[in-house]
Amino acid sequence: MLVLSSPSGAGKTTLSRRLLESDDEISMSVSVTTRKPRPGEVDGRDYIFLSTEKFGLMRNRQELLENAKVFDNWYGTPKSPVEQALSEGRDVLFDIDWQGTQQLEENAAEDLIKVFILPPSSYELERRLTKRAQDPPEIVAGRMAKASDEISHYAEYDYILVNVDVDESLAELQSILRAERLKRSRQTGLIDFVKQLREGL
Amino acid sequence: MLVLSSPSGAGKTTLSRRLLESDDEISMSVSVTTRKPRPGEVDGRDYIFLSTEKFGLMRNRQELLENAKVFDNWYGTPKSPVEQALSEGRDVLFDIDWQGTQQLEENAAEDLIKVFILPPSSYELERRLTKRAQDPPEIVAGRMAKASDEISHYAEYDYILVNVDVDESLAELQSILRAERLKRSRQTGLIDFVKQLREGL
Repeated sequence: MLVLSSPSGAGKTTLSRRLLESDDEISMSVSVTTRKPRPGEVDGRDYIFLSTEKFGLMRNRQELLENAKVFDNWYGTPKSPVEQALSEGRDVLFDIDWQGTQQLEENAAEDLIKVFILPPSSYELERRLTKRAQDPPEIVAGRMAKASDEISHYAEYDYILVNVDVDESLAELQSILRAERLKRSRQTGLIDFVKQLREGL
Repeated sequence: MLVLSSPSGAGKTTLSRRLLESDDEISMSVSVTTRKPRPGEVDGRDYIFLSTEKFGLMRNRQELLENAKVFDNWYGTPKSPVEQALSEGRDVLFDIDWQGTQQLEENAAEDLIKVFILPPSSYELERRLTKRAQDPPEIVAGRMAKASDEISHYAEYDYILVNVDVDESLAELQSILRAERLKRSRQTGLIDFVKQLREGL
């Protein structure tokens, strides 16, 4: 379970997409949300868009691994696709904020790798946040405050990427994933392999 | 501080050399030893070859981070080059066995990454150990027993590489190093960077 968090505008969505394209062993956890789709967003790929009623129902039935309200909209991670992927030995990528990460850690702690993505500068972040032309200024201002709040939680993460160049950051993310898979504790079958090795000597 | 351990014949020396060639930020800790140089070995590069008296002197003066006797020969890690490199912000690579690793952990524990390299099969290891034509059979038999003993300590290491292909293993080792450098706890200046980011928003 690989968590990616970052302030909006730090390039997390692009990075996630690139990582998924490059790595067959990891699949995305698609969040459910009550917010309206933005232009270009596809239901089931970017989010699963739900009514507030349906979202509430999922939450009450404890079908969500984590959920949080951001700017009057609810977001959550459906439990069953995650459990399905993990049971098949696949890794799962989560694009969630610090609140979701804390809940995920409480509800499904076992094997969580937490990566935080920082923008190269506040100037660059501001530039990216104001580029989404469809949003009115007060929304942008709110998003800036939310970005600052999100950044304040960076110290709860294992790895920090400063996203100066997306190709470089992708390579860094791939290294993290590759290294974590090489950890002794994650390699199944090692005990038998070593036993066999020693018997052969 | 990156420790590489493996049974003799698993390809550790080649891997170390390749890693050092590819990465400017890491330097090798050259061990001291009382054993005689093998053909092709260069004093100061492969080992620093010492008399038993000089080795004993260094050990008594506590100038060694770890030392161990293997097959009637002493091996040790001189302290001052390691401290020098670390104080310059450089990483240090150690090619030592499980005994040395345990001692290093006790004497200089702070920031040790431990990687164990396994051969792809016992057949392959045997082939590599008998290839060194200059050694008599009883030496080879002793080395096989030592290899089995070394392998038995694999579970004391953080990462396990099975060295099927040296290019692949090098890439894995580079990923481990890259990922470890991205850990929040190893990135200096992050606190100031984040403070600056948030002030700019």
